[in-house]
Amino acid sequence: MSDPFERRLAACRERLVADALVLSPGPNLTYLTGFAESPSERHLFLIVPREGEPAFVAPRMYAAELAETPVADRRLYGDGEEPTALVESVLADSGLAGDPTRLLVEDRMWARFTEDLRSLPGIRIDGLASAIVEPLRIRKDEAELAALRRAGRVADRVASEIRERGEGVVGTTERDLAREVDRLLVEEGGLEPAFGTVVAAGENGSRPHHGPGDREIRAGEPVVMDFGAFVGWDGPGGPQYPGDQTRTVAFGGEPTPDYRKVHEVVARAQEAAVERVEPGVAASDVDRAARDVIEEAGYGDAFVHRTGHGVGLEVHEPPYIAAGNDRRLEEGMVFSVEPGIYLEGEFGVRIEDLVVVTDEGCERLNDSPRGW
Amino acid sequence: MSDPFERRLAACRERLVADALVLSPGPNLTYLTGFAESPSERHLFLIVPREGEPAFVAPRMYAAELAETPVADRRLYGDGEEPTALVESVLADSGLAGDPTRLLVEDRMWARFTEDLRSLPGIRIDGLASAIVEPLRIRKDEAELAALRRAGRVADRVASEIRERGEGVVGTTERDLAREVDRLLVEEGGLEPAFGTVVAAGENGSRPHHGPGDREIRAGEPVVMDFGAFVGWDGPGGPQYPGDQTRTVAFGGEPTPDYRKVHEVVARAQEAAVERVEPGVAASDVDRAARDVIEEAGYGDAFVHRTGHGVGLEVHEPPYIAAGNDRRLEEGMVFSVEPGIYLEGEFGVRIEDLVVVTDEGCERLNDSPRGW
Repeated sequence: MSDPFERRLAACRERLVADALVLSPGPNLTYLTGFAESPSERHLFLIVPREGEPAFVAPRMYAAELAETPVADRRLYGDGEEPTALVESVLADSGLAGDPTRLLVEDRMWARFTEDLRSLPGIRIDGLASAIVEPLRIRKDEAELAALRRAGRVADRVASEIRERGEGVVGTTERDLAREVDRLLVEEGGLEPAFGTVVAAGENGSRPHHGPGDREIRAGEPVVMDFGAFVGWDGPGGPQYPGDQTRTVAFGGEPTPDYRKVHEVVARAQEAAVERVEPGVAASDVDRAARDVIEEAGYGDAFVHRTGHGVGLEVHEPPYIAAGNDRRLEEGMVFSVEPGIYLEGEFGVRIEDLVVVTDEGCERLNDSPRGW
Repeated sequence: MSDPFERRLAACRERLVADALVLSPGPNLTYLTGFAESPSERHLFLIVPREGEPAFVAPRMYAAELAETPVADRRLYGDGEEPTALVESVLADSGLAGDPTRLLVEDRMWARFTEDLRSLPGIRIDGLASAIVEPLRIRKDEAELAALRRAGRVADRVASEIRERGEGVVGTTERDLAREVDRLLVEEGGLEPAFGTVVAAGENGSRPHHGPGDREIRAGEPVVMDFGAFVGWDGPGGPQYPGDQTRTVAFGGEPTPDYRKVHEVVARAQEAAVERVEPGVAASDVDRAARDVIEEAGYGDAFVHRTGHGVGLEVHEPPYIAAGNDRRLEEGMVFSVEPGIYLEGEFGVRIEDLVVVTDEGCERLNDSPRGW
């Protein structure tokens, strides 16, 4: 059952340069053990020492879920009991009484927990867990790719279904449409929306992360829709992989020439960036390919974000497809390609697909129509 | 528009003992400015110096949302630009070049950001923002209570509707029922589920945080259902307040005497704890009141969690109703009262309502039927 996780834990310890890795709930912990929980105010750590066995320090209420992980050493506490002493006992049992004991901590560990660790005698936080785990996570294996492909098809089907409604959508609100998208994401096989669905009509589209509101959708105006759902993977534990796709569509009515022109620029920018993807190319070069098209069309200042972000257990993770990121692409990396143009007070256009880097280029994980 | 936030920011600065408060996205930031976003991999800080004006350091893509907050000084950066220099400029402009500059940071700030702050010359992280913000947040004002009451009624209506379905639920899966709960939460006026809805049938009920799966619901067996939805408040910005209610119900068929007995013990424990709530009583005394009933019935070891948690902008926040928490209750505090009994491999029972502390006792925010 726990094979992939035992392999990943072993790879982690081989790479470990500090004395121990300390993870709290989040995607790194899920990647290494299959245990999938949100961070909460209770102390829950996986301590992976360079020597000796990994151990959980966790609330007793998770006993059953933790028993399904490959980690045999589980030190549980009840509400009202003191977890910090358990952390010290794990470190001591691994022979880590050295001064200092150098820890790498989960990148998303809350300050309240890092401050707690820091208060232990001899402890030094020496860096972030991603230094060890990210190089493993950034190249997806076949089981992960299979899940990401399925998530892509779920988003595709929903995008196509929504588009077909045409003028039926006119007069409903952004919020109505977002709820309908969320409902369809589940109906089409998703577990739940992977992030807050964006439906941004007209001038609201000029805010890249607009939350859907009571604004009515009018005929012919651009509507930015950015959504995706989590799907489970075909392996043990709770890992889930998201879809993430954006389409900008006009429902009913005649779009303005301005919108059509901007949409065409963004579509060309997206195509140029996707074309650029292959192993060995720098992430920044992919960003540049999209940006060149948009700058040449005179909209450079209106492309206010990077071209893309990696996608895996997290909706946003490395590699970031951004200016200044010289990281070379490798086979198995998965990321979004999503240039956009945002005209304050007027409208916005964004087109987004996920791609996986293959040996000689890339494969798109989305294929629903991209037109306006 | 921004009145409540200006008041709260001023109260914060009055209490500030360190040189500055540094907040990242999360409920404290929402409480102080109305800006409601999830944490992400991009640097987004509100810096509140003891002297001088508060300032945002934030990605340019949030320009429009941040312009709606009462914070006039907003220093924005684009993807590929370096945010750390902006943080230094804010501190310098506030005259905070002292060595050390002592910061209190958001309790949930990710380690990647605290490590970044720590790398600035002369910076010392001296504690957590909650020391300043929590005493303000823990007593809810009238606008907050109005939202929490509405969220309570949404959960009530959904609980009653689900219960009425009786044997119609038998044969569906936990996941089906959870989706139906989520759908009803929105239909009844919620914005979205406030947390992952728990539907745990039969032996799965012995896991307090069980995620709904493919297990079919059988006639007469206990099903633990824990859910609630966010609702907006009647004020500016994006604050949302959650409902949180648990009922344990048998759909169709005859429940076993064991289940009925355990349900009756939990119901009595919950009642005893609610009865104990009034200003001046310690949080631990409320926990004790529930625990006494369950221990006397011989199930002490099966009550594996604390009796409750505060609820406000967060689903779990202070005050925690737990052994060892001597904090005295005050008028305006809102928290859950949710004792449970979990019999590994058999079933679980939990009953949860939210209460607000009033001048002479408490008011329940939930009132749907509590029977088995």
